[in-house]
Order: sequence, then C-alpha cells, then structure tokens
Amino acid sequence: MSAPMKPEQLEAAIRQVGAERYHDKHPFHGLLHGGKLDKGQVQAWALNRYCYQSAVPRKDAALLSRTHERGLRREWIHRLLDHDGLGGEEGGIERWLILTDALGLERDYVVSMQGALPATRFAVEAYVNFVRERPLLEAVASSLTELFAPTLHRERIGGMLEGYDFIGEGAVQYFRRRLEQANRDADFALDYVKRQAKTLQEQEAVLAAVRFKCDVLWAQLDALHHAYVVPALVPPGAFRPQRS
Amino acid sequence: MSAPMKPEQLEAAIRQVGAERYHDKHPFHGLLHGGKLDKGQVQAWALNRYCYQSAVPRKDAALLSRTHERGLRREWIHRLLDHDGLGGEEGGIERWLILTDALGLERDYVVSMQGALPATRFAVEAYVNFVRERPLLEAVASSLTELFAPTLHRERIGGMLEGYDFIGEGAVQYFRRRLEQANRDADFALDYVKRQAKTLQEQEAVLAAVRFKCDVLWAQLDALHHAYVVPALVPPGAFRPQRS
Repeated sequence: MSAPMKPEQLEAAIRQVGAERYHDKHPFHGLLHGGKLDKGQVQAWALNRYCYQSAVPRKDAALLSRTHERGLRREWIHRLLDHDGLGGEEGGIERWLILTDALGLERDYVVSMQGALPATRFAVEAYVNFVRERPLLEAVASSLTELFAPTLHRERIGGMLEGYDFIGEGAVQYFRRRLEQANRDADFALDYVKRQAKTLQEQEAVLAAVRFKCDVLWAQLDALHHAYVVPALVPPGAFRPQRS
Repeated sequence: MSAPMKPEQLEAAIRQVGAERYHDKHPFHGLLHGGKLDKGQVQAWALNRYCYQSAVPRKDAALLSRTHERGLRREWIHRLLDHDGLGGEEGGIERWLILTDALGLERDYVVSMQGALPATRFAVEAYVNFVRERPLLEAVASSLTELFAPTLHRERIGGMLEGYDFIGEGAVQYFRRRLEQANRDADFALDYVKRQAKTLQEQEAVLAAVRFKCDVLWAQLDALHHAYVVPALVPPGAFRPQRS
C-alpha cells in the first residue's frame, strides 16, 4: 500500500484539480465576464444558475442530516443560513432573485425552473445525490470548489458591471457577499479534509469528489454554451431569449 | 371516495391521537415525575433519552434537505438551531448534557451511546428514517407530538425538582426552554398539515404519522421500563445502575 500524502500535499493536489478543471476556464465565463453576451444569454445563464443556487441548501441539509458530530453541524449550518437567510436576513437565494429581477425575468418563471435546461437540472441533482449518498468525507470535499470561487467572483463583478449596461450594483450583491462567505466555508472544509483523509485511498476519494464537483459546474456551462451560444440549439420548452 | 375532514376536524383527530397514545400515559413517566425512581433509573432514562435528543437535528436536517420550499426551510431551521445551538448559544443537546452531568454520568459515556438500550437506538433511527423517506407532509406531521409536550414538560419540571434531591434548577433548563420552543414549532407544523392535507387519504396519512411518532416515544419508555423497573432485565453491554 502506498504511503498517504502529507496534509499540505493533499491541499496542493486539491488546488491542482481546480487549476485544471474549475469552470473559470470554461469559454462561457470568458464571454460572460468580457461583456460579450447579449441580454438574453445573460438571462439564460442567470435562470439556469438559479437551479444550482436553490439546490445548495438541500445538499447542505443532507450533509447535516448525515453527521452525528454536533461540532460539524454547528459549523456547516452557516451555509444554510447564508443561502436561505433567517428572519430579517433574506439570504443568498433572494439575492440571486434580485439579479434575475434586474435582468427583467419574472420571478415565478425563474423559481419554477421551467425554462431551465434539463442538463442543468440533472447536473444539480447529481450534486445533491452525491452529498446524500457518498461517504461524509467526500460530501464535505465536494464543497471545496469554493476555494477557487473568490477569484471568479471578483472577475465577474468587475466584468459584468463594466460589460453590461443592464447590470448595476444591486444585481451583483450576491457575488460581493459570497466573497466573504466562501473563504470562511472553504477554509473550514479544507481543514476538515486535511485532518480526516488519512489513508491514500481516502485522499484519492477527496480528489475525486473535487473533480466530480468541477464536472457538475462545467456541465452547466456546457449546456448553456451549446444551447445559447453555439450552435444555439435550445431544447423544447427551455427559455428562448428574445433577440432584440 | 369519502369527503375530507375540515381542518378543525383534522386538528381534533390529531389531538385525539395524543390523548390516546402520547407517552405521558406511560407508567414510566408516572414513576419518573412522582419521584418514585432511584438515581440509577433516572440516569438510565437520561442517557437513553440522549439518543433521541441527539438524533433530532439529523431528522430535521433530513426534512430541510427534502423540501424545495424556501419558506418552509426558513421556518424549520429554527429547530436545528434550537437543538445544536449557534455560536455562543449552546443549544438543547448541550442542555441535555448538563442534565446528565448533574446526574453524575460521564459525558463521553453518554455521547458514545454505548450504554443505551438497543431498542432505544432502533426506535430513534426509525424516526430519522421515517422523516428521510416518507412524503414530506407525513415527515412534518410526525413532529406534531410537540403539541402535547408542554404539559408533560411542566409536570416533569415540578415533579423532578420536588421528587429528587439530586435534581436542581440547572438540570431542568432543557425543559424550561422547550416550553417556549415546542409551542412555536408545533403551531407552525399544525398549521402546515391543516393547509396541506387536503384529501382524506392525506389526512389519514397525517394521523398515521402522529401515531407512528407516539409509538417511537412509547417504545423508548417500554424499553426503559422492562430493563430498569420490572423485571429489570438489562441487556448485555447496556448501562447498569449502581444500586446504592
């Protein structure tokens, strides 16, 4: 049996997965952040991505439901509170809907997910099921793409504010808030997997979970790219931009 | 097909289930609240009941994980926060451990659940699995035994403070806090099932869920009664009181 990696080697290997597979490299993001899309394409992105946003609390609750460790639950529940909000704090899903409002999409239509691409919904539910079913260590590890998110979010805020006259400060609040939240969450999860993944087999399962999650994110952009950018084959029933 | 009950008839039928089957009628509770148990028997109750307490956040997270309704999640998450606490607030499980501390039980032993009766653990996990697997309406309905809890808790606080010199105010904080929390939670869940259970079949499923939950609670006391009261047949490996 091969020797396990040291924790810092595992961290480096996780970061390497991000360097190779995180969806910041997807051409759709280049177009989105470079102001190269039309409003209909940005709408398509926002309403498809809503499926992912709205699934996140379900996958985090699935993780909570699976652990007997109270300390882990007390830490992880911040993610639910960040997304669903609590009391007067409306939370990240609401901030996402402020973005789709700003893009001129009907809220009921967005929330219904009826215009979302099937491939988006399948990718998102694959993520929820992964967290429900895989070992807890892998479920935690699948969140680690958040390590790579802040750079993407900063690029997105700047690029979208500059590139689109229909995007204002209110519409990018979701990303501004995630800049803080994602760092805290990712640090906790990284520390957790570095402590818990002791055997090489566990460490490889952690890396596979991060790759899986990169695939979930990448597949969503593939679906958008193929339906709305080139060759623009929108499946029956999915959102069709009004070309102005 | 028979006509559905009116919402107030459904509520009355739910309350009737409690009147017939809630565990306040179990003889073990009569002994516990009447100061008739010795310290070892009260310890056995507290450490077995810990299994239930510590499972509650997992079953509530399972419910959160299953619903796409953000409003329901934003309401239901209070239950997780009540039990696990958040930040400086330690939560109900911690308050339960203050009770087991006061009873002179080692925390590690309580938390390990090694001394708990198998029947306790099986009943508790049956509840978690019910909430994971049954329709959401039934999962919500299974919480409705909280409608009947405040009377039991008030009786318990008075009875235990009076009946046992080893129980002080600190040890009953869990129950004092639940007096407020259970009312708020139960009102929400009752309102939810009255609105959502529209067909007679759904209403009967709601009543079955409340009966199921009463069984879960009753079975835990049966196990205690048979092991520690009469005929005192403690299974191998389970907690054995030191008879003083």
